[in-house]
Amino acid sequence: MKLGLIQMPTGPDALSKIREYIEKVSSADIVILPEIFNAPYSNEGFRQYAEPAGGKTYNFLSAVAKEFGVYLVGGSIPERDGEKIYNTAFVFSPEGKEVARHRKAHLFDIDVIGGQKFRESDTLTPGDEVTVFDTPFGKVGLCICFDIRFAEFSLAMAKKGADIIIVPAAFNMTTGPLHWELLFRARAVDNQVFTVGVAPARDESADYISYGNSIVVSPMGQIIERFDEKAQAKIVEIELSQVESVRTQIPTLSARREALYK
Amino acid sequence: MKLGLIQMPTGPDALSKIREYIEKVSSADIVILPEIFNAPYSNEGFRQYAEPAGGKTYNFLSAVAKEFGVYLVGGSIPERDGEKIYNTAFVFSPEGKEVARHRKAHLFDIDVIGGQKFRESDTLTPGDEVTVFDTPFGKVGLCICFDIRFAEFSLAMAKKGADIIIVPAAFNMTTGPLHWELLFRARAVDNQVFTVGVAPARDESADYISYGNSIVVSPMGQIIERFDEKAQAKIVEIELSQVESVRTQIPTLSARREALYK
Repeated sequence: MKLGLIQMPTGPDALSKIREYIEKVSSADIVILPEIFNAPYSNEGFRQYAEPAGGKTYNFLSAVAKEFGVYLVGGSIPERDGEKIYNTAFVFSPEGKEVARHRKAHLFDIDVIGGQKFRESDTLTPGDEVTVFDTPFGKVGLCICFDIRFAEFSLAMAKKGADIIIVPAAFNMTTGPLHWELLFRARAVDNQVFTVGVAPARDESADYISYGNSIVVSPMGQIIERFDEKAQAKIVEIELSQVESVRTQIPTLSARREALYK
Repeated sequence: MKLGLIQMPTGPDALSKIREYIEKVSSADIVILPEIFNAPYSNEGFRQYAEPAGGKTYNFLSAVAKEFGVYLVGGSIPERDGEKIYNTAFVFSPEGKEVARHRKAHLFDIDVIGGQKFRESDTLTPGDEVTVFDTPFGKVGLCICFDIRFAEFSLAMAKKGADIIIVPAAFNMTTGPLHWELLFRARAVDNQVFTVGVAPARDESADYISYGNSIVVSPMGQIIERFDEKAQAKIVEIELSQVESVRTQIPTLSARREALYK
């Protein structure tokens, strides 16, 4: 399975640049964009640039998925649905059909002493679903950024059959150095799946500064690819059959003792 | 809270050396020994050196806890109970009273291609409890080695109020470099607790070679102390009030969405 990671500058003019990035990884099976790629990462940005499913950005993503014949995990956008705004990842098939959508289920509300503060819940509504979708390559779990902190949420995707968990995300200069690599490696080892994080390129002038460092981790917890902070598009090839092999070697999923955990 | 970490050579003659190690950290509040300190780490060793609660090693641990006036997490020993053998950690108060016991709940059965193989389940019976005990310093979760791989098990300890999770453990030269630091950091960040792993000193001539690298991690996931592979006894001071602070800054425990994980 060939992953096309697109760590690009995000913001209101990103839409005009996406095609040139996808061209660089157009031989990938699944192309992945970063979280909130169409707006500034701010509560004002969420409100100003929110769009409905079926809107301009949605239709653009569908069209480019079809044009390039790839699965496209459309990062995420602020999605307007009536009075509510969600942080939503739409996924399109190589035929341009929507095959999955994930609404971020754990909102990013933190207040680190001497570090990053943010309250998504000032604007956003959380989703209520565990999202796994089928592809010809394997089952793909999908969540967004803060969702990856919750061990039980990744486990729920693994239980639904995910061989790989894809995470459009935007850690910052506080939580990135502290926890980005750790969490992608931990969820990979916990569930013996591949994990993939795709982040915006770093913009030091932004209010919210993305850590970048898009990453691919193996089911044994080894880092297969890790970007730096700069804009980059790259294909990373992985072998999904490793999942079954690792689950046989260190059988932690089957050795769970659910009755004890209640 | 002062932790006394004892990374010592293990095996049948360890009992005669424990006092000299404890003397080096006798001003600690809690002293911690490594997993299966009284026997070779092998199924034959478990059978040959298994002892009941109330036996020689048990009584010795009780007596030294009282002599030095410390809480003593007695690593673990193969515990004989009728026909069954458990991998059990006994904990004694400064008065020499047993205050907790944990029987390893997830047995270590792995078969890594080109690496470590082991099957504890050939000999051992798993325990059925989540173990948390009270001290004047805070609530202490206790598990053994392979138990730390199971995110839900550490979460169960955190839900029972653990501020710190102590883990007598013996990772090996395959899983140690791959996962030791990762898992102690992951469980610390998942649950925003301190985690402590105490391992046997490395003996290159043993059938099962311990990785060593005894470790203390903060609730923010930062490594406070990490030994190398050699025998060492050291006091590490931690501030348990950090747990509440970190849980306020990045409130992942309270932001869990249990209904979604089913």
